Amino acid sequence: MPHSKPIHYADAGPEVRAVYDEIKATRGVDDINNFWKHIANHPPTLKHAWESVKEAMTPGKLDSLFKEMVFVAVSASNGCEYCLRCHTDAARKQGMTDEMLGELIAVVNVATQSNILANGYQIPLDDDLKD
Amino acid sequence: MPHSKPIHYADAGPEVRAVYDEIKATRGVDDINNFWKHIANHPPTLKHAWESVKEAMTPGKLDSLFKEMVFVAVSASNGCEYCLRCHTDAARKQGMTDEMLGELIAVVNVATQSNILANGYQIPLDDDLKD
Amino acid sequence: MPHSKPIHYADAGPEVRAVYDEIKATRGVDDINNFWKHIANHPPTLKHAWESVKEAMTPGKLDSLFKEMVFVAVSASNGCEYCLRCHTDAARKQGMTDEMLGELIAVVNVATQSNILANGYQIPLDDDLKD
Amino acid sequence: MPHSKPIHYADAGPEVRAVYDEIKATRGVDDINNFWKHIANHPPTLKHAWESVKEAMTPGKLDSLFKEMVFVAVSASNGCEYCLRCHTDAARKQGMTDEMLGELIAVVNVATQSNILANGYQIPLDDDLKD
Amino acid sequence: MPHSKPIHYADAGPEVRAVYDEIKATRGVDDINNFWKHIANHPPTLKHAWESVKEAMTPGKLDSLFKEMVFVAVSASNGCEYCLRCHTDAARKQGMTDEMLGELIAVVNVATQSNILANGYQIPLDDDLKD
Amino acid sequence: MPHSKPIHYADAGPEVRAVYDEIKATRGVDDINNFWKHIANHPPTLKHAWESVKEAMTPGKLDSLFKEMVFVAVSASNGCEYCLRCHTDAARKQGMTDEMLGELIAVVNVATQSNILANGYQIPLDDDLKD
Repeated sequence: MPHSKPIHYADAGPEVRAVYDEIKATRGVDDINNFWKHIANHPPTLKHAWESVKEAMTPGKLDSLFKEMVFVAVSASNGCEYCLRCHTDAARKQGMTDEMLGELIAVVNVATQSNILANGYQIPLDDDLKD
Repeated sequence: MPHSKPIHYADAGPEVRAVYDEIKATRGVDDINNFWKHIANHPPTLKHAWESVKEAMTPGKLDSLFKEMVFVAVSASNGCEYCLRCHTDAARKQGMTDEMLGELIAVVNVATQSNILANGYQIPLDDDLKD
Repeated sequence: MPHSKPIHYADAGPEVRAVYDEIKATRGVDDINNFWKHIANHPPTLKHAWESVKEAMTPGKLDSLFKEMVFVAVSASNGCEYCLRCHTDAARKQGMTDEMLGELIAVVNVATQSNILANGYQIPLDDDLKD
Repeated sequence: MPHSKPIHYADAGPEVRAVYDEIKATRGVDDINNFWKHIANHPPTLKHAWESVKEAMTPGKLDSLFKEMVFVAVSASNGCEYCLRCHTDAARKQGMTDEMLGELIAVVNVATQSNILANGYQIPLDDDLKD
Repeated sequence: MPHSKPIHYADAGPEVRAVYDEIKATRGVDDINNFWKHIANHPPTLKHAWESVKEAMTPGKLDSLFKEMVFVAVSASNGCEYCLRCHTDAARKQGMTDEMLGELIAVVNVATQSNILANGYQIPLDDDLKD
Repeated sequence: MPHSKPIHYADAGPEVRAVYDEIKATRGVDDINNFWKHIANHPPTLKHAWESVKEAMTPGKLDSLFKEMVFVAVSASNGCEYCLRCHTDAARKQGMTDEMLGELIAVVNVATQSNILANGYQIPLDDDLKD
């Protein structure tokens, strides 16, 4: 028994179909990823996830590629294979090269290392960093 | 008893002093953060941490502000107060505005949310994302 | 310098004020928690966070106390002091006793223990749990 | 070479057999999950894990389904596939519907989101939440 | 209002007192840490935590200092300040020097780094590591 | 499309080949693990990862088997299958028995449990553990 079943367009109610249609239109694609089809098992989750992703990933003061790469960095840090692969793919389509990915993971690496060392030595805040 | 003591320049051996000097010269500062003074309790850790941070944070295909902001994103994700505050400060000095920080955390937020949903529904990889 | 400043009602724009007003009305309170005042530094984050929290925490098939206690469980698991204290307080106001909290944390504890053991021994899925 | 081998009843010593027998009797099952067979590589771990799980999951002030669903929530949060699938299955057998699972994951989602935002903005405790 | 109150000996029931007495006798101390006093809010949690800690930390194939240092390593990795300080103190009392702590954290550091890189590059298992 | 491609010796530049050669010589092996071949996509990451691993894992005040087992403990705690399997294998080759692994995971287990309980009850530092 699969852990959760995808909700296909043909079987979806109007609330879910409306989100699927909007995802396809926004992204210019014919079909949507498994991600959306599975979280559609709970329609309010689908709706809020899509709205918050759309809002957060729309170019603003930060551009679209930058945002995709931050998404990759967080997913690598959390070890989420699905999101890592999905957003690495998206970032590559927007121009991320192997070298850029290499530099990105190198920053994730040193940030994580610094987090561990700050914890391990219980390093106190510098005075100018305190509230 | 403090968990670990900072190693001050006056008390440091030549290996540690050489790193302190290089940090000050590279960054153009008179003193260094508590971070370096505490990890200097294990000189090889100080040396490797500094070398990998210097290498990873040097502008390459990605610019310096981008890299600082990824550092902030990972530290927020890991909940490391010391690194978050230290690198938010550094990113602000390189031009990160409140709006840019707001957009950055919004991306960290939706990435984390996606990681949780991908786990919670055990979403299978789309065919085009498989190895 | 504080890491982020709270946005007070008097200084907030109309988008933020509308959310503050809705939180106060929904919860029947005169003032709102620091949480909302700080994430208001990025108004779209405030709006989406409030909408998804409101949606997720509204009683449905699961009642309100159950949901608060799950919120407590996840925050304890993630080690987030702010959310843990805030939602433990909310759960207590809805009737959670010390004994119920004790049982809740005991479940978080054995779940975490099982997660660690499943990882540590790399335990394969039982046949009836496979997709 | 498998990472760890299951300990089958026929090959188990009396200390392990006693736990296996008790699990089967308590749960009314003919066989036990891989989980127990693998952690039996270290008999004291098997014994303590079983005793603490039995104690924590026995209905008390919180009922059995509630406890299973908290177990699911924590395992989803930690990304442990084995425990997530195993306890989602157990919760379904006790009456958890797809809608209830959807609401549960939605709470895990907003709790995690709140944890990230509380970290990212370094939100200070409200006065009434302080010790 | 403190998040949880310590349970002092004078106010404890016989089940809790019995565990307190055993901790004091086992460790040869006059008083016990806050840890035990707080988890005593749920007596079965106190009992199981103490029994599993006692069992796991008793010298066996691994000696006591080794075990304390692994406890420190995991607590540093999880960023748990209370446990990190408590068990670093215990390890020092058993002979851990600053140099040994430095080497320990260095291993935690490279292990974490390797975990992040293995995730970030989605490195496939070598053939001889597969089940 | 695989997420990242291994860099084979024949296709590697001199900087990468030099590291590969040093790994083979240091470890006395004919070929290197996938880990190194994948992180070689970013040569500076390969170089720093190797140097910091070599430094951290060299016997010092702590011996080699101790260090391998701490590596296993951290990887189990972080749920990194690749590193867990790779370093469990390495530890076994240095003499770690099933019983030693069982005791190791038991310590990881109680440490994690203590971390969760310290968070869940927000246990304050004992006076003698404060800075």
